[in-house]
Amino acid sequence: MTATPIALGPTHTAPLAEAITRAGGTLVELDRARALVWNGGPDGFPERLPESIEWVQLFSAGVEEWFETSVFDHHPNVVFTSAAGAFAKSVAEHALMLLLAGVRYLPEHLAARDWHRRQLEPHVGTLRGATVAVVGAGGIGRELIAMLAPLGTRVIAVNRSGTPISLPAVVETVPAQQLSQIWSRTDHVVVAAPATADTQHLIGKAELAQLKPTSWVINIARGSLVDTDALVEALREGTIGGAGLDVTDPEPLPAGHPLWELPNAMVTPHDSNPSQVRAPAFAEHVAENVTRFVQGRELIARIDVSAGY
Amino acid sequence: MTATPIALGPTHTAPLAEAITRAGGTLVELDRARALVWNGGPDGFPERLPESIEWVQLFSAGVEEWFETSVFDHHPNVVFTSAAGAFAKSVAEHALMLLLAGVRYLPEHLAARDWHRRQLEPHVGTLRGATVAVVGAGGIGRELIAMLAPLGTRVIAVNRSGTPISLPAVVETVPAQQLSQIWSRTDHVVVAAPATADTQHLIGKAELAQLKPTSWVINIARGSLVDTDALVEALREGTIGGAGLDVTDPEPLPAGHPLWELPNAMVTPHDSNPSQVRAPAFAEHVAENVTRFVQGRELIARIDVSAGY
Repeated sequence: MTATPIALGPTHTAPLAEAITRAGGTLVELDRARALVWNGGPDGFPERLPESIEWVQLFSAGVEEWFETSVFDHHPNVVFTSAAGAFAKSVAEHALMLLLAGVRYLPEHLAARDWHRRQLEPHVGTLRGATVAVVGAGGIGRELIAMLAPLGTRVIAVNRSGTPISLPAVVETVPAQQLSQIWSRTDHVVVAAPATADTQHLIGKAELAQLKPTSWVINIARGSLVDTDALVEALREGTIGGAGLDVTDPEPLPAGHPLWELPNAMVTPHDSNPSQVRAPAFAEHVAENVTRFVQGRELIARIDVSAGY
Repeated sequence: MTATPIALGPTHTAPLAEAITRAGGTLVELDRARALVWNGGPDGFPERLPESIEWVQLFSAGVEEWFETSVFDHHPNVVFTSAAGAFAKSVAEHALMLLLAGVRYLPEHLAARDWHRRQLEPHVGTLRGATVAVVGAGGIGRELIAMLAPLGTRVIAVNRSGTPISLPAVVETVPAQQLSQIWSRTDHVVVAAPATADTQHLIGKAELAQLKPTSWVINIARGSLVDTDALVEALREGTIGGAGLDVTDPEPLPAGHPLWELPNAMVTPHDSNPSQVRAPAFAEHVAENVTRFVQGRELIARIDVSAGY
């Protein structure tokens, strides 16, 4: 089979070139290519693509800035795909890390300076058989659910529609309007929903009060979804087991804030998707889409120009 | 379908009773039962089981002490199963937790008292696309491999025979005799092999020297498999990224030992399978075997009396 001719711009990187050729493409100049992988922003994008170009892969997950250009209008017959979903995996992995570290009582273990097995062991929990509410079952939530499945976790998935999520670990899908039902029924909560007016302080005093003294709350979405003052109080009182936060309100969290000092709070400074992870994640996304393009299959993260995203 | 009559002894516990009935059994007295779930040791075990008993589920993973009794000899027509494998999941979960926490640089994050994103972010790694050598692909190793699969990790599995392990994440199975080949080719190492004369100091100075400055070494097996002095030196010099240890040599690790102070060492005091997790894990094991018994399928962890384990 002849390799599919694909162009790479504006800059060549070894991982992207490798991803394209590994997936069945061969790197060529733009005027001989059937597709273009573009690892830059709108500046410098070709005014008019050659007729031969059928597909363009863009670098960003959100493509608002591309809609401010004429790129889509100028190329009505070209399929554009974004990087949506490519970066969800790293954030989901971070959420899993925070949840596991909390449930297994790692912060107190790391503070120990002797073999305090008797004091520590009773606090070591497990995700096996535990119920985790994943609030927001979009890209990040679904990746996390897939990671929880082999751990034997029972997932309550919360999405807008309540349309059942058919992933192995999911025991129930709850529509966002019925969110108030889940707090007393779950062991842990991972917040993975977008920040909107509806999700502001989605977790506050009333919700925390219904959780368990062993419950961990993980937030890898946006700080505004959790009421920080209510959370600090719950952590101090032992209303919940702890919190793992990659996002905070305010953000950055200032020095001297109680969340830095509480032994049952873990804060990471919004680095769940660090730049050195973003590049290989995009390469993986490109490899997947090149494979699909070569095989004539539907591409992932196709931009719907009429819908505007 | 009539529920299968099963006896539970010497003590009734709600989780075990629930597991048995959920799996299609019904709790009856011993003399009316077809199977016995025994959650105690050999003391007090019935001298002669009723003729109706076809299967006995024992509580422990290792059954050496049962071989010192006449129980197996007295019941040549009864199938005995152990709890082997039931406790592997918790240890594998612990290994995953330590590996993720290390790779994502959690210890340094927890030590921070301000939003040090610039300093911390460059050190946040990912298991996606990373190669993890799982040395010892028995019960714990296999559970861990299943947990690594949705993270997009590439696993080099090491077992005695080199017989290929067909699990999704495994890219290569290496026989233990060729262990020396793996160190320079892996990103991280999880030690999950039994402690034998052959595995003593399986990881020492020469092996550590071939790993990367970003490599994490996780040991959830036995302390003797890692040369502690060589490990401390590698951690101090930055030869490797860090170590996560649930087992140490010596064990317990004494106060004042450098492993307590090194910022890139995480020590948990052999509590990867805490007692509060063991009970539900056994209940899950029982449910699985009762399901199989009810359906007439092969039981898991069947004791081979002639082989002695």
